[in-house]
Amino acid sequence: MKITRTQHLIAFALLCALSITTTIAHAADSLPSWNDGAAKKSIVEFVSKVTKEGSPDFVPVAERIATFDNDGTLWAEQPMYFQLAFALDRVKALAPNHPEWKTTQPFKAAMEDDLKTLSDSGMKGLLQLLMATHAGMTTEEFDAIVKEWMATAKHPRFKRSYTEVVYQPMIELLTYLRVNGFKTYIASAGGVEFMRTVAEKVYGIPPEQVIGSSIKTKFELWEGKPVLRRLAELDFIDEAAGKPVGIHKFIGRRPILAFGNSDGDLQMLQWTAAGAGPRFMGLVHHTDTERERAYDRQLSIGKLDKALDEAQAKRWTVVDMKRDWNRVFSFE
Amino acid sequence: MKITRTQHLIAFALLCALSITTTIAHAADSLPSWNDGAAKKSIVEFVSKVTKEGSPDFVPVAERIATFDNDGTLWAEQPMYFQLAFALDRVKALAPNHPEWKTTQPFKAAMEDDLKTLSDSGMKGLLQLLMATHAGMTTEEFDAIVKEWMATAKHPRFKRSYTEVVYQPMIELLTYLRVNGFKTYIASAGGVEFMRTVAEKVYGIPPEQVIGSSIKTKFELWEGKPVLRRLAELDFIDEAAGKPVGIHKFIGRRPILAFGNSDGDLQMLQWTAAGAGPRFMGLVHHTDTERERAYDRQLSIGKLDKALDEAQAKRWTVVDMKRDWNRVFSFE
Repeated sequence: MKITRTQHLIAFALLCALSITTTIAHAADSLPSWNDGAAKKSIVEFVSKVTKEGSPDFVPVAERIATFDNDGTLWAEQPMYFQLAFALDRVKALAPNHPEWKTTQPFKAAMEDDLKTLSDSGMKGLLQLLMATHAGMTTEEFDAIVKEWMATAKHPRFKRSYTEVVYQPMIELLTYLRVNGFKTYIASAGGVEFMRTVAEKVYGIPPEQVIGSSIKTKFELWEGKPVLRRLAELDFIDEAAGKPVGIHKFIGRRPILAFGNSDGDLQMLQWTAAGAGPRFMGLVHHTDTERERAYDRQLSIGKLDKALDEAQAKRWTVVDMKRDWNRVFSFE
Repeated sequence: MKITRTQHLIAFALLCALSITTTIAHAADSLPSWNDGAAKKSIVEFVSKVTKEGSPDFVPVAERIATFDNDGTLWAEQPMYFQLAFALDRVKALAPNHPEWKTTQPFKAAMEDDLKTLSDSGMKGLLQLLMATHAGMTTEEFDAIVKEWMATAKHPRFKRSYTEVVYQPMIELLTYLRVNGFKTYIASAGGVEFMRTVAEKVYGIPPEQVIGSSIKTKFELWEGKPVLRRLAELDFIDEAAGKPVGIHKFIGRRPILAFGNSDGDLQMLQWTAAGAGPRFMGLVHHTDTERERAYDRQLSIGKLDKALDEAQAKRWTVVDMKRDWNRVFSFE
């Protein structure tokens, strides 16, 4: 088929016209799980202004960086972090090889689902648990272990795969942002290799856009084959003041939009807010006892207190789960 | 303008036909600075097979990850690393505030361009120099300092901006890979924030695709404004066995193509080679005394020795600069 230059131009013009129509149509109903209200309005207005060419608020595609906390922002975090549930299951699976765990804390507590004693063991106890279950193997072995767990474990309350206990309105928001040229990132205190096993499938976020806490790895030849061995040594804690550090280290650009749900996200939001030009800072506020859970200032771990005060003072967007979301999970 | 479905389909068919034609045409002359020969052939054959849908070697776009060393692979590294030239210039610029440097090594040597004494000061001396010139300021201040230097400093041999002393055939290769759906990354022992200032402009590689060595940063409020302060403390050395570690940490996927030029790249190449499916491992061999320089096993820093042996034994692609490139720099 021979195509003239004129035919090419006509074809191009037609396609441009069509894709503009499609984009506008898509924007109107791309957040169906969000009720009309201040939160949805603030999101749509922000995205509209930064994507409008010629507008003083226009942001080039390359700089449309959006970062999201994960636990409590994209997926549920109560009654316990998914990764802690994974660690407890791993302790039980590994217990036959560790008879000493029956009488050693925090392992005894982990095997008995004794969250009170676990919590009392503090950071030191949690780290022991983490290193015993997350280190020693190669990165490929760990990847396979997590994927197997994700495929079989069930959330204690919803009796569904953990990968289903994700907030449908946030999935829609991630997609809406990407359709509008944003690069969406996770910036979470969760383990980066834990999240990477499912982030692409669940959120459409590829591994290279997941930032999280990590332990060190070491390159070695294992039976002649190069592997990366996971070491029982902390590398980086991607929480609180660590979040802007991690974002800068991995992305090298400041986000123009950030979303969190706890005081551990405050510095990420402050760092985002401090850039030039239009900014969007959002918090998910857990207010729905029926469909999910209601909590903020009273938690001992992961509380939303100072960040809520600052969000209110600075008019950041606070999403009221009960009021702003007509659907929380896709399985409802 | 109202467009019928038929018109839409015609337009789409026309465009598809056009873009196929364009892609094939583009492939043929997208590496004009490469002479026809084994190196160019191996590149084109690799890219053709991994991008051919339905072929057993087809690799989905998401997994087309390519990592490149920088010093000596993408830009020149002789007579000294660009970043060392930057550090020496910074010592001279900062010297008026440090009268003690006149009598303290390695600063005295840096101020006198005494590379012999500098080299004798070893890793300890180089780190002292690095910390005195790269730490203390905020990330934004450092970014501005490097950009100013890049805009004004000249390469000692070529008397041109350092950003021009980049290998034209490698620029073409980066572009060729991206046109074919690859995500191109830098994985270099150089400082990540140093490279990020120019990587997008020079290579078309955005900051989030630059992996390098780093010092730690700390989030703090400075006169009420959130900043990231650069600390005089090493965070990560992205060299040798550190390269697969850095690649895994930042990308979370194994590259299918990697390019280096020294023994510091060997583990990255081994890690790339050890994955399943088609793989491409390449080395730039500096063999051109006239247009650039000829060196390999005899260097004390940055030598190409073990990696050259392994490349020859395993039939990786070794690019002979003199024979394989008809142009080294764009300004020739």
